[in-house]
Amino acid sequence: MWSAEPGGPVHPSTSVWRPLGAGEIQVTGGIWQQKQQLNAEVILGHCQTWMERIGWIGNFDRAAAGAIDGRHSGIEFVDSEIYKLLEAMAWELGRQPAAGLERRYCALAERVAAAQEPDGYLHTSFGRPGQPPRYSSLETGHELYCFGHLFQAAVARLRTGHDDLLPQVARRLADHVEGQFGASGRGAVCGHPEIEMALVELARATGEQRYLDLARLFIERRGTGTLGVHPFGREYFQDDMPVRRATTLRGHAVRALYLASGALDVATETGDAELAGAVRQQWAHAAARRTYITGGVGSHHQDEAFGDDFELPADRAYAETCAGIASVMLSWRLLLATGEDKYADLIERTLLNNVLASPRADGRAFYYTNTLHQRTPGLVLDEHELSHRAESGLRAPWFEVSCCPTNVARTLASVGLYFATASDDGVQLHQYGDYRVTTTLAAGTVTLQVSSAYPASGTISVKIVEAPAAELALRLRVPGWARGSAVLSESPATRTPGHIEIRRIFLPGESIDIRFPDQARVTYPDPRVDAIRGTFAVEQGPLVLALESPDLPPGWNVNEIAADPESIATSRAGVTIDVYRPAPAPDGWPYHPAPAENRGERARTQLIPYHQRANRGPATMRVWLPVCPPATPVAAAGLSA
Amino acid sequence: MWSAEPGGPVHPSTSVWRPLGAGEIQVTGGIWQQKQQLNAEVILGHCQTWMERIGWIGNFDRAAAGAIDGRHSGIEFVDSEIYKLLEAMAWELGRQPAAGLERRYCALAERVAAAQEPDGYLHTSFGRPGQPPRYSSLETGHELYCFGHLFQAAVARLRTGHDDLLPQVARRLADHVEGQFGASGRGAVCGHPEIEMALVELARATGEQRYLDLARLFIERRGTGTLGVHPFGREYFQDDMPVRRATTLRGHAVRALYLASGALDVATETGDAELAGAVRQQWAHAAARRTYITGGVGSHHQDEAFGDDFELPADRAYAETCAGIASVMLSWRLLLATGEDKYADLIERTLLNNVLASPRADGRAFYYTNTLHQRTPGLVLDEHELSHRAESGLRAPWFEVSCCPTNVARTLASVGLYFATASDDGVQLHQYGDYRVTTTLAAGTVTLQVSSAYPASGTISVKIVEAPAAELALRLRVPGWARGSAVLSESPATRTPGHIEIRRIFLPGESIDIRFPDQARVTYPDPRVDAIRGTFAVEQGPLVLALESPDLPPGWNVNEIAADPESIATSRAGVTIDVYRPAPAPDGWPYHPAPAENRGERARTQLIPYHQRANRGPATMRVWLPVCPPATPVAAAGLSA
Repeated sequence: MWSAEPGGPVHPSTSVWRPLGAGEIQVTGGIWQQKQQLNAEVILGHCQTWMERIGWIGNFDRAAAGAIDGRHSGIEFVDSEIYKLLEAMAWELGRQPAAGLERRYCALAERVAAAQEPDGYLHTSFGRPGQPPRYSSLETGHELYCFGHLFQAAVARLRTGHDDLLPQVARRLADHVEGQFGASGRGAVCGHPEIEMALVELARATGEQRYLDLARLFIERRGTGTLGVHPFGREYFQDDMPVRRATTLRGHAVRALYLASGALDVATETGDAELAGAVRQQWAHAAARRTYITGGVGSHHQDEAFGDDFELPADRAYAETCAGIASVMLSWRLLLATGEDKYADLIERTLLNNVLASPRADGRAFYYTNTLHQRTPGLVLDEHELSHRAESGLRAPWFEVSCCPTNVARTLASVGLYFATASDDGVQLHQYGDYRVTTTLAAGTVTLQVSSAYPASGTISVKIVEAPAAELALRLRVPGWARGSAVLSESPATRTPGHIEIRRIFLPGESIDIRFPDQARVTYPDPRVDAIRGTFAVEQGPLVLALESPDLPPGWNVNEIAADPESIATSRAGVTIDVYRPAPAPDGWPYHPAPAENRGERARTQLIPYHQRANRGPATMRVWLPVCPPATPVAAAGLSA
Repeated sequence: MWSAEPGGPVHPSTSVWRPLGAGEIQVTGGIWQQKQQLNAEVILGHCQTWMERIGWIGNFDRAAAGAIDGRHSGIEFVDSEIYKLLEAMAWELGRQPAAGLERRYCALAERVAAAQEPDGYLHTSFGRPGQPPRYSSLETGHELYCFGHLFQAAVARLRTGHDDLLPQVARRLADHVEGQFGASGRGAVCGHPEIEMALVELARATGEQRYLDLARLFIERRGTGTLGVHPFGREYFQDDMPVRRATTLRGHAVRALYLASGALDVATETGDAELAGAVRQQWAHAAARRTYITGGVGSHHQDEAFGDDFELPADRAYAETCAGIASVMLSWRLLLATGEDKYADLIERTLLNNVLASPRADGRAFYYTNTLHQRTPGLVLDEHELSHRAESGLRAPWFEVSCCPTNVARTLASVGLYFATASDDGVQLHQYGDYRVTTTLAAGTVTLQVSSAYPASGTISVKIVEAPAAELALRLRVPGWARGSAVLSESPATRTPGHIEIRRIFLPGESIDIRFPDQARVTYPDPRVDAIRGTFAVEQGPLVLALESPDLPPGWNVNEIAADPESIATSRAGVTIDVYRPAPAPDGWPYHPAPAENRGERARTQLIPYHQRANRGPATMRVWLPVCPPATPVAAAGLSA
C-alpha cells in the first residue's frame, strides 16, 4: 500500500486519479506563476523574518539550550508556523531548486531538530522545567496539532526527493506519539485535529503502518468525549459525535475540515467505505448550505465556526483564509478518491476567490478573514507592528495567531500540484491556467502544455508536446459555472455536464482548444440565505466580482447603492454595471411603515475580481448588490458607460 | 445641588422632569406587576441560591477570613453580581417591604462588609496574599466596575430610606478610590466603565462633591490612552477617543452605554453642555443606525460590540440583555434631562422587547443574548448546570459570566420608577400599564390611577384619585409607533406627535381616557440594513411580534417560509398571517443563475410577542418575515383562517 515515490501533498495508495509530483507538473505563466514567484521572492522571506524578529524561531534555540522557562515567545502553538514555513520551503524547493533557499531551509530544520528531546518529543511550550507538563492541556494546547504540521513538512521534504533531517525528526516524534497515544497508550485526542491526516501521509511516505493505525485511533476516538468541556461547546472541536455519524461540517471550520481530511485519508487506506461516505455527505451538506459564494466557510467570528445552515451574512463573513485552504485540502482528497468534477469546482472557486484574496499584491500583508461586505474602510496597519486582531478590513503583516500567512505560503508553493492528475491511460485537467504536465502512463510518457489567459479569459489551448503512439484519454473539466457551455475544437468521445473526454491517439505538435463563456453573469442566492435576499452577485468565469469604493463616484457609498442586473456589460477593459444611489434616507429610527423607494442617481461603474480587493488602499466593498427595483431614475450622474 | 431624599435609580440635581421614588409610584397590575411578583418570589431567590451554591457569595466569607488565596470562585468580577442582587433587593424592599427579604438583605450586606479592608478597599479577587496586586489589571480586572455596582446598590438603599451598612461600606470604598484615582492619584481608568455613573449617584445621594469630581476625572481621562492595548482594539473599551469627541456609540455595547450614562450624569451636574450634547448625538446616531427593532443593541458575538452602521443581521444578533438594560439607563437619563419623548419611546421598546425577553416565564432561566432569528431550536439545559455559553438559543439558569440575571432582577424591581415623572405643576406619563402615582406638586398632592391592558391593548384610563383645586398639566406620551393616532376623551391643550397635554383643574373621581391603535401593523427595514432586505416585521402596539415554530403546520420550517404582509389580521385571539412554504429547493450549490420562485403551500399561522419566545420549549423563531412575491399559491394547507 505504500508509495515512497515523489509526489504532491496527498498520495493515497489507491485513488481514481493519480496525483502528480513536483517533477510532473510546472506552472509556466499567468496569475499562478506570478503568485508562486511572489511567494518565492517575498512571502517566504516575510514569514521567516517576522518569526525571527518576534522570537518564534528562537523558541527552538532557547528550548535546545534548556533556557525556555518563562522565555517562550508567542502563543503555545507557534511551533506550527515554523513547520508550515518549512513545508512551504520544501514545496518551493521541489518546484524550483535554489541554493540560497536550500541553505535557509537546512539551517532552519537544524534549529528545529536541536530542540527535539531524547525520547522524540518536540514542542517549545510544554514539558521543560517551568512549563506546563506534556499533554496537560489537550483541549487547547495544540501539541499534537503542531506535530501534525511537522509531519506534513517532513512529507513535503520526502515527496520532493530528500530523506534528510526533518523526516528523521518526524519519525522519532511519530514513534514517540505512537507510544503515548497508540493502542496501549492514552485514549485521547488533540483539541485541534490536524495530526490525523499528517500521520496518514507520513505512513504513506515512510511505509510505517503504525502511523496509519494511530491516525485511525484518533479518528475513532473523536466524538466520544475524551476531551473536557470547551466554552464554545463540544461541537467546536468536533467532540460532540463520532466522525462517521456526523452529517455535516460543524464547529470551528479549520478543525472540522482538517478532521474530515484525516478521516477520508484513514477511510481510503483502511477501505472503510462507511467513513468515506460520511465525509462525502459532510462535504455535500456544507457545500450546499454553509459555504459563501467565494468558497469561504465559517461565518462566526467568536468561535471561527461554521454557522447554521444558510447562516451566511455577507457583512459578518469570517471566511478564514486557513478554512479555505483546509477546504481545498478536503476537496482534493475527495477528487482523487471519487474522480468527481464537483470537487474540482469547489477547489477552483475557493483558491481563486478565498485563498488568493488573502495576500496583498505585494505579498507583505494578509487577510486572516475574508468578508464579503466591507462596510467601513480597513485600516492601514504599521508594517512593523504585530496585529492583535484577525478582523476583516485589516490586511496585516503578521498576527498574534498567524496561521494564515504560512498556510498561504505552503499552498502557493504547491498549488500547481492540484491542477491535473493522471490515470493508467490518460491525463485529467482539473484546473486551467498556464502549466506543463509530463508524466508516464502505461503506454509511455506524455507531455502537455496548457496555455490560456485563464481566469481572465475562458479560452484554453492544450498543446501535445510529447505522446506515445497509443490511444489515450484527455479529460478536460467543464467548470460548473459554465453550465455545460464548452466549445471544443473537435468532437469528444464523452461529454457530461462536468467534463469532456477525448479518447484517441494524440500527435506531438497538435493542439486541442476549448472555450468557456467569457461574459460576466448574474448569480442569485438561495432564498434561505436570509442575509442576502434581494441581492445578486456578478461572476465572470471562475471569479467572483466585487464593487469597491474607489470605482464609485465621489460621495457615493457601497452601503447605500442598488444595482441593475440587466445592465452588466463585459468588454476587454472589464465588467461594468449601472448602480443607483437612492435619495438620502431619513436619519431616524430605521424601521418604517412602508418599504423604501430606491429611485435615485445612476452611475456606471466597474467591478473588480474579489481577490484583488483593497489592493488600492483601504476601501469599502461588497460582493452582493441589492437589486434596483424597477423605477425610472430621476437623474444620471458620474461615470458614463 | 444635592438631593438626599428618597427617589429612584437616577436623581439629577437639575432636570426637565423630576423622577419619582418608590413611595410615589406603584405598579398595580398587568404584565409588569406579574413580572415584579415573579422577581420577588422567584428571581431574587434564584440568583442568591445559585451564587451561594457556586461560591460567589462565599468569596466574601473567605476573603474576610483571610483564606481566599487560591480559593476564589468564578471569574474576577463576580463581586458585581452580588452587588446587583443587593441593589435588586433594595429596590424590591422599597417597592414592597417584607421582613424575610429584609433579613436576607441585611445578612448578605454583612457578609460583604466583613470583607472590606481597613483602608476601604473591597474586592475578593485582588490584593490579598496569593492574589494579583490591587489595580494591576485595569484593562480586564474590572475592580472599579465592581465598585460601581456596590455604589449603585448603596444608592438604592439610601433612596429607599435606609442609611445603614452598605452605604457606609460604599462611602469608605469611594473615599479609598478617590485617594487612589483622584486628582492627586493615579491618572487611570477602568477597562469597563460603570463607576462613573455610580459615583455621580453616590455624590447625589450623599452630598459628597469629591465623588462627582472623581467621576468627572474618569470621564475626562477616558480615550486618552491610559489603558493598554486590548485584543479587540481600543474602541472595544472606548479608549480610542475622548467621550466628548465621539459621535456614536461603539465597541462593547454595555461598556459604551454605561460610559455614556456616566458622561451625561457628569455633564448634568457640572453644567457641561458640550459633553451633554455629545451624548445626545451618540444616542441619536446609534438609535438610527445601530439598533435592532427590539431595541436590542450589539450585533457582534466575539466582542459583544455595536457593529458598523446598519450591520444588524437578524440571525447573528447578540443584543445582550445587559446592553438593553444599559440602553434604558441612558435613555432614562436623557428623558429626564431633555424631556423629549423619543427617549421614552426607546425605553418602552427596549423594556418590552429586549429586556423582558430574557427571563423565562417561570423566572428560572435567562437569555443572555436575544437573537431575532433562531435557526435551530435551542437546547434544554440542565437546571442545575452552570452554562459556559452565552449564545442565543439557550436560556440558562446561570452563566459563567452571569451579568444578565442580576441585571434583570434590579431592573424589574425598579421598573415602575421609569413610568412617570413630575414637574412643579404636573405629571408626565411616559409608559403605560397599571400603576398609581402619588406625588406632591407646588399646588398640592395629586394621585392618579392608570389602568389598561397595555401592551395587549391600546386603551388607557387615567383616573384622578386626588388633586388640588388648581390648574395642573397632565402630559400623556403618544408612542412613536402610534404615528400620532391617539383618541382622547377630551380636547387637549397641546398635541404634538410625541405627546398630548391636558392643562386644567382636575376633579377627583373623573377619568381621562386615551386610545392608541390596537391593530397589528407591518414594518419595513431601512434598505441599508442589508441582512433583512426583502422582509417585514409585524408589530402590535409597542410589541414586536415573532413567528415561532410551534405555530407552523408540522414539517414547516421558519427558515424556509415567506409571508404576505397584506394578510395580517388582528382579533381578540391574537394576530394571524398567511405564510407560504415554497417547493423544496435543490440541495446543491446555493447560488443560481435565476432568482428563486417562491410559490408554494399556504398556511394561516399566529404570531406571538417576541418576548414570549421559547416559553413553550425549544423552538425556531423569526421576527423578520421574507415578503412573499406576488404569485398564485398552488395549494392551501394547514391551519385555516
